[in-house]
Amino acid sequence: MLAEIITIGDEILIGQIVDTNSAWMAHQLNLIGVSVKQVTSVSDDEQHILQTLADAEKRADIILITGGLGPTKDDITKKTLAKYFGMGFRRDEGAMEMVTSIFKKYNRPLLDINAQQADVPDGCEVIVNRNGTAPCMWFEENDKIFVSMPGVPYEMMYLMDDEILPRIKSRFKLPFIVHKTILTANIGESFLAKEIEDIEDALPVHIKLAYLPKLGQVRLRLSAKGDPEAILIAEVEFYAQQIMTRVRKYVVADEDIPLEKAIINIMKHEGLTLSTAESCTGGYIAHLITQHPGCSSVFWGGAVAYAYELKESILGVKQSTLDTFGAVSEETVTEMAEGAIKQFKTDYSIAVSGIAGPDGGTDDKPVGTVWIAVSSKDKTIAKVFNFSNKRTQNIERSASSALAMLLNLLKEDLHKE
Amino acid sequence: MLAEIITIGDEILIGQIVDTNSAWMAHQLNLIGVSVKQVTSVSDDEQHILQTLADAEKRADIILITGGLGPTKDDITKKTLAKYFGMGFRRDEGAMEMVTSIFKKYNRPLLDINAQQADVPDGCEVIVNRNGTAPCMWFEENDKIFVSMPGVPYEMMYLMDDEILPRIKSRFKLPFIVHKTILTANIGESFLAKEIEDIEDALPVHIKLAYLPKLGQVRLRLSAKGDPEAILIAEVEFYAQQIMTRVRKYVVADEDIPLEKAIINIMKHEGLTLSTAESCTGGYIAHLITQHPGCSSVFWGGAVAYAYELKESILGVKQSTLDTFGAVSEETVTEMAEGAIKQFKTDYSIAVSGIAGPDGGTDDKPVGTVWIAVSSKDKTIAKVFNFSNKRTQNIERSASSALAMLLNLLKEDLHKE
Repeated sequence: MLAEIITIGDEILIGQIVDTNSAWMAHQLNLIGVSVKQVTSVSDDEQHILQTLADAEKRADIILITGGLGPTKDDITKKTLAKYFGMGFRRDEGAMEMVTSIFKKYNRPLLDINAQQADVPDGCEVIVNRNGTAPCMWFEENDKIFVSMPGVPYEMMYLMDDEILPRIKSRFKLPFIVHKTILTANIGESFLAKEIEDIEDALPVHIKLAYLPKLGQVRLRLSAKGDPEAILIAEVEFYAQQIMTRVRKYVVADEDIPLEKAIINIMKHEGLTLSTAESCTGGYIAHLITQHPGCSSVFWGGAVAYAYELKESILGVKQSTLDTFGAVSEETVTEMAEGAIKQFKTDYSIAVSGIAGPDGGTDDKPVGTVWIAVSSKDKTIAKVFNFSNKRTQNIERSASSALAMLLNLLKEDLHKE
Repeated sequence: MLAEIITIGDEILIGQIVDTNSAWMAHQLNLIGVSVKQVTSVSDDEQHILQTLADAEKRADIILITGGLGPTKDDITKKTLAKYFGMGFRRDEGAMEMVTSIFKKYNRPLLDINAQQADVPDGCEVIVNRNGTAPCMWFEENDKIFVSMPGVPYEMMYLMDDEILPRIKSRFKLPFIVHKTILTANIGESFLAKEIEDIEDALPVHIKLAYLPKLGQVRLRLSAKGDPEAILIAEVEFYAQQIMTRVRKYVVADEDIPLEKAIINIMKHEGLTLSTAESCTGGYIAHLITQHPGCSSVFWGGAVAYAYELKESILGVKQSTLDTFGAVSEETVTEMAEGAIKQFKTDYSIAVSGIAGPDGGTDDKPVGTVWIAVSSKDKTIAKVFNFSNKRTQNIERSASSALAMLLNLLKEDLHKE
């Protein structure tokens, strides 16, 4: 079963927003055994949308469309779909009730432009959107399904979870797709490939192996497609075990989770606690960790100490250390990490101090110079990194390197016992 | 001049990664007057890639391709491009030098699979990639340009900035595109549209107005295309001023910046300082602020106080307050905000305490209940919000609402003086 995703809106094509919807939708579709053949982003242009719909219809069985459903003049998805299917318009009662109730809830006058949100092509089935005024529209023609949803991520997500995915599951007999991801760290993609070359070569044709490198980590993803599901799961597990046995020392997790989540899982299992002391990463490491449900038994919190004063007052860094060595130094980052352990009373800590840029660099310490320390109760390891001249990259790579350092320290400590 | 972006890789279509490259590339292309007609993501499948290249060639003059250039077997972009153009392969000396030097730098043995990274279709021009082993390839045929780049974001960005964009600019006579964005807050999209309906209706055909709503803010984007640039700039400025005069009280910034950057700018201008005290947002607000260069003169830092103990020790929240009212309460969030002002010695502070979920809710305080406080030296305003049952959304909406509350307090204080 093949699907395509079409996102409509000038904002993607002029680069004003990043399309996060498609990845989320593709992930959900894959989980129920629907492969996504193509993701296409087009502008609010009638002819182009019509052509894109026709092309997608040739390749796929299910076409999911987001965006272009706002009340304003630049949004033309609804009109274009009516034209594509040769339909007129009707006002939908259920959609109108929702529009009315939303305006009532916020105590705002209902303008004509808002009421028009309830007008839909007369041949579609309306799925009421409980989180917004743009209704979801389900079209069927020649055994193909077209669904139009709003582009607002949380409206789209609710509609997919509660309505679209269950309907697709009950409508089609779907093949199974089984994925298994192995997260590795501290080894490059090509070395990993060399290590497991014979295993990869021996994979049956219905099982694929992909290498997904990102910030010093490589994910290995095995994907099997077919029937029955139980056999696929067993097969994928068999090859995953072969790979994990071969490259054991680089394996961080045997599931598709980010590095910080793997660390939370290990620390939770061991009953350990963590705090952070961030300067140039500015809360990003804490944010990465606290994205994950259940982190609170491990992560107690931390400081974002941008100003010298806060490094001293919250973390207990000595003024003399800052004056003598500067904020971006082994001495300061060590005191930050050890200060976090002491002040926040955790078993482990991460500290980062660097020059994220684009300004603030010197000959001695150019932009991209970052000191990172990880601490346990009896040991602190500090390292200096030289990243790029781009602020966002420096923040991301600092966070990733800090987490990798913490993982190594944890592995060392846990192995020792 | 029209461009298309093609991203190649299964990882996008199974939803494992979000395609951030396309938005960045589209933004850069727009800035030099190249419109992006379509963004297409396809899998590592030869036939599909060939068809996508042929379709893009029909619509656009410049086709930028990312991804599928890794050394492993799942990466087939290079072979497919050779087939598309009917070319053989040659080993490129410049690319080989780069591969060799990268392996030398990291002191790793050069495997045959790595050396093959320097093999390129024999009719393309190689642009050496200084940040990785996959060379960038530039093809010209029938006055159309095809560029293949690695999908690793920072490698792609350097290549675009330093090589591709300058080459495109010197190769074509480009029309001008002028954008102007107005950031508004505290007014809905349709009310805004109603307020400025006559201005929108009077826009000349070469100027478009788009509404871009996001988390309680609406961006208004005027786009003009044509020649000469000076006239376009003046026209767009003329209509932007009309709009801003009409909806003055909702205007936050007259440029395309996020809310937190608008706040930093205002506070910097007024010589004011800010700190944060975050519980359920877990460092996300600090991260939003510290993404921006130059924030350090305004933002001194803050606490991520996940555990009760840290709310007490860093922020001075009273144990009796936590015991009596709980962490998610007006009393606690007020003490957090006022504690931040006192402990971190800033003019303003933001504090957030809520139940991000998915667990931890009660009948009284369901998941999504979030208390937010903003404080100045003589005033604290606290509000409760009831967001959704999704953790990421709760974090994002809490941050956005907290920033909007701070903006209002700032406007009030600055207006008063």
